[in-house]
Amino acid sequence: MDLLAVRDGATETRSDPVAVEEPLEIRAEGPAQTAVSIAVTMRTPGHDAELALGFLFGEGLLRSADDLRRPAIRELAVEGSANNTVTVRLAAAFDAKRFERHFYMTSSCGICGKASLEHLQAIAPPRIVEREGGPRLSRSLIVRLPATLRAAQSAFDRTGGLHATGVFDRDGRLLVVREDVGRHNALDKAIGHMLLQRQVPLADRVLMLSGRVSFELVQKAAMAGAPILCAVSAPSSLAVQAADRLGMTVVGFVRGETFNVYTHPERIDVGA
Amino acid sequence: MDLLAVRDGATETRSDPVAVEEPLEIRAEGPAQTAVSIAVTMRTPGHDAELALGFLFGEGLLRSADDLRRPAIRELAVEGSANNTVTVRLAAAFDAKRFERHFYMTSSCGICGKASLEHLQAIAPPRIVEREGGPRLSRSLIVRLPATLRAAQSAFDRTGGLHATGVFDRDGRLLVVREDVGRHNALDKAIGHMLLQRQVPLADRVLMLSGRVSFELVQKAAMAGAPILCAVSAPSSLAVQAADRLGMTVVGFVRGETFNVYTHPERIDVGA
Repeated sequence: MDLLAVRDGATETRSDPVAVEEPLEIRAEGPAQTAVSIAVTMRTPGHDAELALGFLFGEGLLRSADDLRRPAIRELAVEGSANNTVTVRLAAAFDAKRFERHFYMTSSCGICGKASLEHLQAIAPPRIVEREGGPRLSRSLIVRLPATLRAAQSAFDRTGGLHATGVFDRDGRLLVVREDVGRHNALDKAIGHMLLQRQVPLADRVLMLSGRVSFELVQKAAMAGAPILCAVSAPSSLAVQAADRLGMTVVGFVRGETFNVYTHPERIDVGA
Repeated sequence: MDLLAVRDGATETRSDPVAVEEPLEIRAEGPAQTAVSIAVTMRTPGHDAELALGFLFGEGLLRSADDLRRPAIRELAVEGSANNTVTVRLAAAFDAKRFERHFYMTSSCGICGKASLEHLQAIAPPRIVEREGGPRLSRSLIVRLPATLRAAQSAFDRTGGLHATGVFDRDGRLLVVREDVGRHNALDKAIGHMLLQRQVPLADRVLMLSGRVSFELVQKAAMAGAPILCAVSAPSSLAVQAADRLGMTVVGFVRGETFNVYTHPERIDVGA
């Protein structure tokens, strides 16, 4: 992207990369159904199939890769336009009407907190993190997560405009990193990837986010069964309340040698 | 919020403020209509009426304070719950059915970029920034904006979790600052405030954002007629494309003595 860089009194015309943001329509299709448009999201192109799978998983429309037909994904790029579509082909029919309402309730537009927590527990009891389950992490492992995530990001340093989600194992090994202009999309992509790898629920995994932690991100992580959510920045009040209730450990402000544990510190070994 | 702070090997239990995130339902009501639920947004409580007004303005449901009945706002807080509602009372009836579809198209869930730009121009021609209109800003004024914004933020330094939008005049004086966990909400609140002050369109104003610039934020700023949008972080590709087309100057990475001008540099005087 051409821009005018102003450095003190000097100016320079140059071309810097910027984070790409384009709309993607996510559709779902049962065996004898026509495809139903579930959401249009502004995302950074790449790993679109994972994004669609992760999004639909978070909405409760599929539980595992077994819920997919083959081929599971139909991608459609309209020549000369930015209108791309991913259709997820489900093995079983679904109630499109019920889902439209559901989408409205749990989209990133916002959500009624308490009602939604109950709704989440109602539709996804097996995914909810069990209290005191999951790995136990040492302090020294946690403080290394941000640098590992940053090193693995393909675009962050070049555009400065992408959020990242990393999935780590209990020994701090990075399993996958996904990036997007939208932090919820980065998490959806990572979950979609793990879903295709048949590694969901993420009962023994650690999620690391590059930004802040909203209620919606805790909700998505809980749907995927992640017991520990770490982030470079702060959680919101409702994110903390939800994590506390769902049995999830939330660690924020992981910077340098320091971090804050907001919920369920029993999974953190601060002495090691 | 009680947390366990881990600093090197030492730990400390303490209570830090976190950014409050709670759902708000925004409703609109014509003279002989029952209130229609337009959106539920996760927001930081405070300036809820401004948020609702700014949001509905961005959706094209009102053009000025003249489009409101008196009293213009009815706020309802449900005792003992986080379910708050703001109803905006409009002077004229509106087509609730048409609006539901519109909401779906332009919500923060995402949007079809090209179609939406055309839609935006179709519904809001008077607000679109005229090419080469608006103030001309000096370099020295721009580099002072972030510090002024930060100094005015009431909660940022305490929670580290809030986005801010500031509205400045052409001389760099801050007219209003609004904060929220959602950056789109911070902008909606600021626009809602200016609307109540009868200062929309923002033809002679400068918007300064604490974070990144998405397409959606450019869209909201354009609806309010803002000619210059400055931000601490990066714009997305679609934000730049939209601003270029709409005639808006986008300045990103305003940090220290440096910044990047992505679109319409004719409004920036780099020598002064």
